[in-house]
Amino acid sequence: MPSVSAPAAHILLIRCPDEPGLVFKITGVLFRHGLNILRNGEFVERADNCFFMRTEFSGSFEAESLLQELTRVLPTAAEIRLSDNRPKDVVLMATKEHHCLSELLVRHAFGEMNARIVAVISNYPLLGDLTRRFDLPFHYLSHEGKTREAHEAEVLAVLAQYEPEFVVLAKYMRILSSDFVARYANRLINIHHSFLPAFVGASPYAQAYARGVKIIGATAHFVNEQLDQGPIIAQSVIPVDHTQSASEMAQAGRDVEKIVLARSLRLVFAEQVFVHHNKTIIFD
Amino acid sequence: MPSVSAPAAHILLIRCPDEPGLVFKITGVLFRHGLNILRNGEFVERADNCFFMRTEFSGSFEAESLLQELTRVLPTAAEIRLSDNRPKDVVLMATKEHHCLSELLVRHAFGEMNARIVAVISNYPLLGDLTRRFDLPFHYLSHEGKTREAHEAEVLAVLAQYEPEFVVLAKYMRILSSDFVARYANRLINIHHSFLPAFVGASPYAQAYARGVKIIGATAHFVNEQLDQGPIIAQSVIPVDHTQSASEMAQAGRDVEKIVLARSLRLVFAEQVFVHHNKTIIFD
Amino acid sequence: MPSVSAPAAHILLIRCPDEPGLVFKITGVLFRHGLNILRNGEFVERADNCFFMRTEFSGSFEAESLLQELTRVLPTAAEIRLSDNRPKDVVLMATKEHHCLSELLVRHAFGEMNARIVAVISNYPLLGDLTRRFDLPFHYLSHEGKTREAHEAEVLAVLAQYEPEFVVLAKYMRILSSDFVARYANRLINIHHSFLPAFVGASPYAQAYARGVKIIGATAHFVNEQLDQGPIIAQSVIPVDHTQSASEMAQAGRDVEKIVLARSLRLVFAEQVFVHHNKTIIFD
Amino acid sequence: MPSVSAPAAHILLIRCPDEPGLVFKITGVLFRHGLNILRNGEFVERADNCFFMRTEFSGSFEAESLLQELTRVLPTAAEIRLSDNRPKDVVLMATKEHHCLSELLVRHAFGEMNARIVAVISNYPLLGDLTRRFDLPFHYLSHEGKTREAHEAEVLAVLAQYEPEFVVLAKYMRILSSDFVARYANRLINIHHSFLPAFVGASPYAQAYARGVKIIGATAHFVNEQLDQGPIIAQSVIPVDHTQSASEMAQAGRDVEKIVLARSLRLVFAEQVFVHHNKTIIFD
Repeated sequence: MPSVSAPAAHILLIRCPDEPGLVFKITGVLFRHGLNILRNGEFVERADNCFFMRTEFSGSFEAESLLQELTRVLPTAAEIRLSDNRPKDVVLMATKEHHCLSELLVRHAFGEMNARIVAVISNYPLLGDLTRRFDLPFHYLSHEGKTREAHEAEVLAVLAQYEPEFVVLAKYMRILSSDFVARYANRLINIHHSFLPAFVGASPYAQAYARGVKIIGATAHFVNEQLDQGPIIAQSVIPVDHTQSASEMAQAGRDVEKIVLARSLRLVFAEQVFVHHNKTIIFD
Repeated sequence: MPSVSAPAAHILLIRCPDEPGLVFKITGVLFRHGLNILRNGEFVERADNCFFMRTEFSGSFEAESLLQELTRVLPTAAEIRLSDNRPKDVVLMATKEHHCLSELLVRHAFGEMNARIVAVISNYPLLGDLTRRFDLPFHYLSHEGKTREAHEAEVLAVLAQYEPEFVVLAKYMRILSSDFVARYANRLINIHHSFLPAFVGASPYAQAYARGVKIIGATAHFVNEQLDQGPIIAQSVIPVDHTQSASEMAQAGRDVEKIVLARSLRLVFAEQVFVHHNKTIIFD
Repeated sequence: MPSVSAPAAHILLIRCPDEPGLVFKITGVLFRHGLNILRNGEFVERADNCFFMRTEFSGSFEAESLLQELTRVLPTAAEIRLSDNRPKDVVLMATKEHHCLSELLVRHAFGEMNARIVAVISNYPLLGDLTRRFDLPFHYLSHEGKTREAHEAEVLAVLAQYEPEFVVLAKYMRILSSDFVARYANRLINIHHSFLPAFVGASPYAQAYARGVKIIGATAHFVNEQLDQGPIIAQSVIPVDHTQSASEMAQAGRDVEKIVLARSLRLVFAEQVFVHHNKTIIFD
Repeated sequence: MPSVSAPAAHILLIRCPDEPGLVFKITGVLFRHGLNILRNGEFVERADNCFFMRTEFSGSFEAESLLQELTRVLPTAAEIRLSDNRPKDVVLMATKEHHCLSELLVRHAFGEMNARIVAVISNYPLLGDLTRRFDLPFHYLSHEGKTREAHEAEVLAVLAQYEPEFVVLAKYMRILSSDFVARYANRLINIHHSFLPAFVGASPYAQAYARGVKIIGATAHFVNEQLDQGPIIAQSVIPVDHTQSASEMAQAGRDVEKIVLARSLRLVFAEQVFVHHNKTIIFD
């Protein structure tokens, strides 16, 4: 099984205060460097007059001179990033449920993730067998009898071995401290098993059942310091009805959770997502 | 334009504690009366061991003797209701937005509602022209300069003229008092412009925009004393993205709101909905 | 009831063979004219290397000089169009079913269409009452006892009075001749009551019922010479099951049809749709 | 990893000509045997006046006497079946794409299938590694240089070893002969990568791209002698647009395919599906 797909193209990501002529100036720089735009997207967030642009391009160039020229034509506050779109190093964290982990391990095994899964960490041993079937290291770090700080220190120690660019919480059912979250700002992605902001916190399916909703969902989001309040990347829903118990809703919801998580990772790992305040700008 | 559709068939609605043999006993009564079951649905709510049954049947019968025999075979606490499925008398209430009111007026005009809309009440005059185009009485009852009690007293006085079986809040944007709600228990239906329980209360689209959700929705529900907490009848959603402002989300949401409201009324007016505690049991 | 909404902004629409630097050149022209880009979209159809761009901009300018300069920087074969996004004149055609016509008449009455509905034509008299309630002319042109040519000649004579930019078939259930279609190339829009290309032709709900499908849909498309084969603008679907008869599917499908038709018209009337061979390129 | 879930309850499946009193008579037999109905569903297909009933019940009973009594009260032509809902033996067939096979192997590994996958057969060797990771036998039976008959004879010989109750075509990309299909009537399930009946046959995504559709889908169906014409079990769809190539549509469609296939198998293996002529009656 091949383990990663080939990088597609170079990607230019720009965020800066909006002003007239930005597209003209940016595309001018690319044109003068003889680069070929394959795909281009722009967006202006009117709320704070912020300009976003994502450009896929091909051609050969000297990165430093390209960045210098872009810096010269753009406003002072511009953030400019060039990405070569290579696979990201990722650690997955899970607890007991397998469906999100399985989904990512299978996609990874067939080179569909634009990522290199370097390890799986879990606070239970249950998913070790699955992980090893895909020839990946599994770190079982029980939280029992440990303070949150002590347990997180163990997790961080394992993460330090791998230096991942992203940590994905694939149904990791423990709340992480602000300190932990801060270390992986905009690099820590969670799947929450409800249609946020409905049913924040524990047992969302039990909450959904108790409320008698007719639709349930799942939300993939970046984790920030407030529980289930981070920037949303992707959401999806399915219909339910009064005949379904909370556990039947949970079962039905799993298919949604895993597909939404996989979709959100595809977007993030392809550099299609800007995090802006508490939201995402997505060039899809 | 014809104003109501013909009743379909007789409907038997039963709720009682579950026990073995209920379906056998109930269908036995119908069989002995020579009645023909057209459509039958049963459900047991395991949480409180409650049995629900809805049966559409045809044939001629003496209602009193049928009810007596059903009472005899069913548990003491049974609620038994026979409906002839005739059109319900309904008053609509609205504020400024037309889309839900238009939807219902048009469906009514073409006999698609299993209801007779007898009047429209609004706290603004804006929708009077629309209502009169469909030859229905429009009562403009401004709330300005009045206490909630005084205004509701005026509304109740108009409602008293019509004695409707149901009152439908077709984007009526004022909160009703517990007293008002209690008078129309299980007969007062609202469309809330969010996917409840997300975004309870005012300006749900502004809330949705601020939260950066990727899906928005609408919820039709019975009104009870807690704001936006009543039993949900129907919900529906549509995708949104970062390019849409709160007002563009509101615009997109209108199509969902009106269709969900119409769908919930179709279910309620066809006697397909049981209200059970804070939920609905729907035989669809 | 106000009858049209205000135009938003100027729109520039360009189609030409792709070549490097197009975005740079086009935005350069706008920049030099001091125009402010509000929203911009580009797309390259790789199949035939065709570049599309749609730009909303504000500012004052001299149209002729802008077009000249654009022509100068673009490839010879470029199609360049400037639109002031004013409401389009539209004639609606219908047969017996009201739901699509009602939907458009109501939206039009409240200024939500970016169009001016100038008349309704029908081959049956049934929808005349509805149309007149909205103070619009209704032309009843029966097809009975007439050849297709004779009937179409009558329709064309009425259309000639209004010179509409678009003709919308809002459940007009007769097949139009190639000759008729050719007169309104890319200006004739139909709603087909199936998820095309499934169930082309007559009675799609009966076909769907017979096939036992689990989802039905509707398709808004430009009409071309081949029945139900024109470029698709929008599609939507709803689930169905074995309990629904063909006529119940038809009833359920109506909500989808009218919303899809309205959505497709919103896109077309806002100049968001390019027709390219047998497809649409949509800047949404 | 446990390999199968526990059976839920006994299931009674009845199909017969409709007549008054059937529910009464059937539930009477169950009542007299002291059996407890957990879930009950009835349906009458009006087109041919055919009655269907599916009942989940608990309690102990003597199968022969129960069946005899049911036979006695039901019309002569009645089909009556008692199922103990135990896991079904299943062989999977695939070609090159892994996504449907992976989905089923993972669900099976975690006991979520109500089935025992006994083997995988493929006409390519590519998925052998995946299959062996889940400790299941993989039979690579190349079709190259063989007639259809010769190749199918090899496949049938392997199937004969396992005597599966169901054969699932999890993206098996070869057309099976009528003879093969006849051997597994109502026991052979396929996932077709389009929203049937749109895009029958080869390369449905290429067809969808060429037609410019705005929605694509997948269809799980029983296989019969006519290509892609068998009874549909489940369908699902996702939106697409002009920016997606045929291969990008294929990629997006895979998530739909695997979920639809898994959902259809859940229904079939839980005995919730009647095949009736060219349709399915599903008690969900």
